[in-house]
Amino acid sequence: MATAEFWYEFASTYSYPAALRVAALAAARGVGLVWRPFLLGPIFMAQGWRDSPFNIYPAKGRYMWRDLERTCAAMGVPLKRPEPFPQPSLLAARIALTLEGDQRADFSRRVFMAEFGEGSPIGDRAVLGAVLEACGVEPAAMFERVQGHEVKARLKAECEYASEIGVIGAPCLVTADGEVFWGNDRLEQGLDWAAHGASAA
Amino acid sequence: MATAEFWYEFASTYSYPAALRVAALAAARGVGLVWRPFLLGPIFMAQGWRDSPFNIYPAKGRYMWRDLERTCAAMGVPLKRPEPFPQPSLLAARIALTLEGDQRADFSRRVFMAEFGEGSPIGDRAVLGAVLEACGVEPAAMFERVQGHEVKARLKAECEYASEIGVIGAPCLVTADGEVFWGNDRLEQGLDWAAHGASAA
Repeated sequence: MATAEFWYEFASTYSYPAALRVAALAAARGVGLVWRPFLLGPIFMAQGWRDSPFNIYPAKGRYMWRDLERTCAAMGVPLKRPEPFPQPSLLAARIALTLEGDQRADFSRRVFMAEFGEGSPIGDRAVLGAVLEACGVEPAAMFERVQGHEVKARLKAECEYASEIGVIGAPCLVTADGEVFWGNDRLEQGLDWAAHGASAA
Repeated sequence: MATAEFWYEFASTYSYPAALRVAALAAARGVGLVWRPFLLGPIFMAQGWRDSPFNIYPAKGRYMWRDLERTCAAMGVPLKRPEPFPQPSLLAARIALTLEGDQRADFSRRVFMAEFGEGSPIGDRAVLGAVLEACGVEPAAMFERVQGHEVKARLKAECEYASEIGVIGAPCLVTADGEVFWGNDRLEQGLDWAAHGASAA
């Protein structure tokens, strides 16, 4: 079975529609999907950015929010901008990395819906706790678990690996042969490549 | 008849496939197209960039060139990186602005094919002269004409106007109701909007 990796960051706006779309797109092409949460912070820092480029460059930020409005409207999903933007995504990323398989995907979609669909603060334990409960995970034990060294080291390694394989933003679709497709608008192209190789993309 | 503006910059890599695709996509939707050459330089300068962001941020540059290879391969068009990148595009932009209608589109496509299909230096008068002759335009008179104050002032005004309406990169598709769609990969979405409004995009 062809596989692909879906790299996403909870603070990333375009990761929201991508997270809602990607599973169905992969299934339709018979592509197995691995959800890989990571943090853009270290990648942005390496480029000299200490904030979202959508804040550093206001014209790009204005464009992005309007573009995201159009994207969400066309998908029929709500969009409510969280304040502040970007939201602190570290805790959500650690939790997602701790979960496995379908539970990771389910948690991730619910976090994005809370954050960008309802505008909720995803650095808030009450928000993440409610999401965890909706996923059938006991929040208190999870919050304790993700304070451990192992989870922190694993997320750090994921971020370093993302940078090594050429993930420069979020979301990215990465194929088994190492092609990187950046953006919500490239999911189809990346999954076509994963399913059929260069001839189909 | 629905109309849309196609804003492009001769130094812009993604403007190359867009320029080759946009006329057929617009015609298929019954959208009349206005070709609007401009310069990204002033817009980049306003963001503090004195070079292409693809050079300032090498990881983004590497991604872009690979992505462009895939895009051109899928279209069946050649790609040869011009050196240096970005190419000086001022003279080509002035000439394009001086030409009208189909001749402007024809000249523009040919400049892009020379630059990114063959890797030719488009700041070179010999290169532009050959393109002009292929378009049935006498080069010497054109080169003299575009040295005039009127053309320079007109191009400057175009760049200022582009910035005012939210053109933040190239290419952009701008609809009559003021929506901006940035990127070669957004031409279809922008033209759908131009043809049918929000309901179709």
